[in-house]
Amino acid sequence: MSLPSHVRLVEVGPRDGLQNEAQPISVADKVKLVDALTAAGLSYIEVGSFVSPKWVPQMAGSAEVFAHIQRKPGVTYGALAPNLRGFEDALAAGVKEVAVFAAASEAFSQRNINCSINESLERFAPIMAAAKQHGISVRGYVSCVLGCPYEGQIAPEQVAAVARELFAMGCYEVSLGDTIGTGTAGATRRMFEVVGAQVPRDKLAGHFHDTYGQAIANIYASLLEGIQVFDSSIAGLGGCPYAKGASGNVATEDVLYLLNGLGIETGIDMPALILAGQQICSVLGRPTGSRVAKARSAG
Amino acid sequence: MSLPSHVRLVEVGPRDGLQNEAQPISVADKVKLVDALTAAGLSYIEVGSFVSPKWVPQMAGSAEVFAHIQRKPGVTYGALAPNLRGFEDALAAGVKEVAVFAAASEAFSQRNINCSINESLERFAPIMAAAKQHGISVRGYVSCVLGCPYEGQIAPEQVAAVARELFAMGCYEVSLGDTIGTGTAGATRRMFEVVGAQVPRDKLAGHFHDTYGQAIANIYASLLEGIQVFDSSIAGLGGCPYAKGASGNVATEDVLYLLNGLGIETGIDMPALILAGQQICSVLGRPTGSRVAKARSAG
Repeated sequence: MSLPSHVRLVEVGPRDGLQNEAQPISVADKVKLVDALTAAGLSYIEVGSFVSPKWVPQMAGSAEVFAHIQRKPGVTYGALAPNLRGFEDALAAGVKEVAVFAAASEAFSQRNINCSINESLERFAPIMAAAKQHGISVRGYVSCVLGCPYEGQIAPEQVAAVARELFAMGCYEVSLGDTIGTGTAGATRRMFEVVGAQVPRDKLAGHFHDTYGQAIANIYASLLEGIQVFDSSIAGLGGCPYAKGASGNVATEDVLYLLNGLGIETGIDMPALILAGQQICSVLGRPTGSRVAKARSAG
Repeated sequence: MSLPSHVRLVEVGPRDGLQNEAQPISVADKVKLVDALTAAGLSYIEVGSFVSPKWVPQMAGSAEVFAHIQRKPGVTYGALAPNLRGFEDALAAGVKEVAVFAAASEAFSQRNINCSINESLERFAPIMAAAKQHGISVRGYVSCVLGCPYEGQIAPEQVAAVARELFAMGCYEVSLGDTIGTGTAGATRRMFEVVGAQVPRDKLAGHFHDTYGQAIANIYASLLEGIQVFDSSIAGLGGCPYAKGASGNVATEDVLYLLNGLGIETGIDMPALILAGQQICSVLGRPTGSRVAKARSAG
């Protein structure tokens, strides 16, 4: 199978990344990060999350971040909106695209968002209606697609059922997340085969964690299945605090290195990307999670 | 293309790994490492190197290590023997299999072993003859197969020429090494396609470094090309001190995780392997380079 000629990277560092770092950072530093990612050529940046700061203190100030970032034409600046209240806040902040979040595992859904999978989908219905009314695009996430910290293996058919529902509800794209990073290349391909029979492959994205060092191989496996959109996090920021041992969003730099090597277009500039990662790691006082950034800084 | 049902991992940690760690460790600790790797089910362990301790102080005592390890029937305990003097020392130490080392890059050959590629191959001739006479198997290494720190890109045809020569000289297997870790999945496949036209694919092995986070993807790409033997290093020990920024042999634990996920047989026990890695990292006072070992110890 031939590889796609172009891939879109969805940069989730400012949201999925920072949300899972130990301490909140200032609005000014978040704005600086988003602007640096824009400058690097990302065409999709998930900027923040409209949730209660009681639950996710790291995401406080998302509206202010949206108010201060430099928006570049053609770039999508998205936000997570887990409920109608969050959606309305996002709308008020001038957000043009939101994301909703479901799980492929019942146990994870219960423990992470405190309701069943079906209940979570029902809660999205008013968001979808309001989004349609206001001309807002909605992206869907499905977590635990290649394993659950509570249930273990997850059947691809279960992932397909949730993805199909999100797509049918109006999500223009469904991102399938290996939340705990236990997936390997063969399981990744089988999962996309099964889900791809229910949702067109050009409406699917892959979201991989590098917890077990498999993310880049899983992305390559996904490319072989015709997947053209991948979520990644600058400097490998974040992970998932609800999933044991599930640190490690795949680093955007390392994904870009793969795609550049394969001759796949992304529009992203590696040196500018590495610079964005260095800046945020300096703010956080943590080392980069990107092997490419490490190797380049050693050089 | 279907994946192989069985893969042999060549554990290079005690040689390629320790050789490139900052300080030498004791013979007793080396013996303990090799015995732990044997217990984990590895069928090939590169135990040491018969070179002048002036040049590679970390490999001093390789004969003593061979004298004290517990040899398990069916397991190959190999050693690097870069010249006839080294070969004779290896023979005296009871080594049954040796490895020789060439480069696919002229500049790297000159700087690393101080002679041209052709001169290095000529130097192997007496080793090959002596090995044949004593019934010793010889494994060949080719370095810089996907990039050179001095020359940049390396043509696959150049790799094929060196690999073909080593095979023709009597090496039963030729391991192709991405010494600086710059290879990506597509280049890996093209390289094996070109080399595979000159040397049977079941006589080739892949040796990947994770410097840019690509090793597991490159191994998956190699499996898709029918390659069934891979070198790896427990806990990701080592790298190459002569190649700028080239830290990071791929960790055996992470490769095993991929292979287990793909349902490919190796005969290796993951918990015992992780234990072997923890022990040597404790001796070296360094963190593991294996993401699997990190995730498991966090769990």
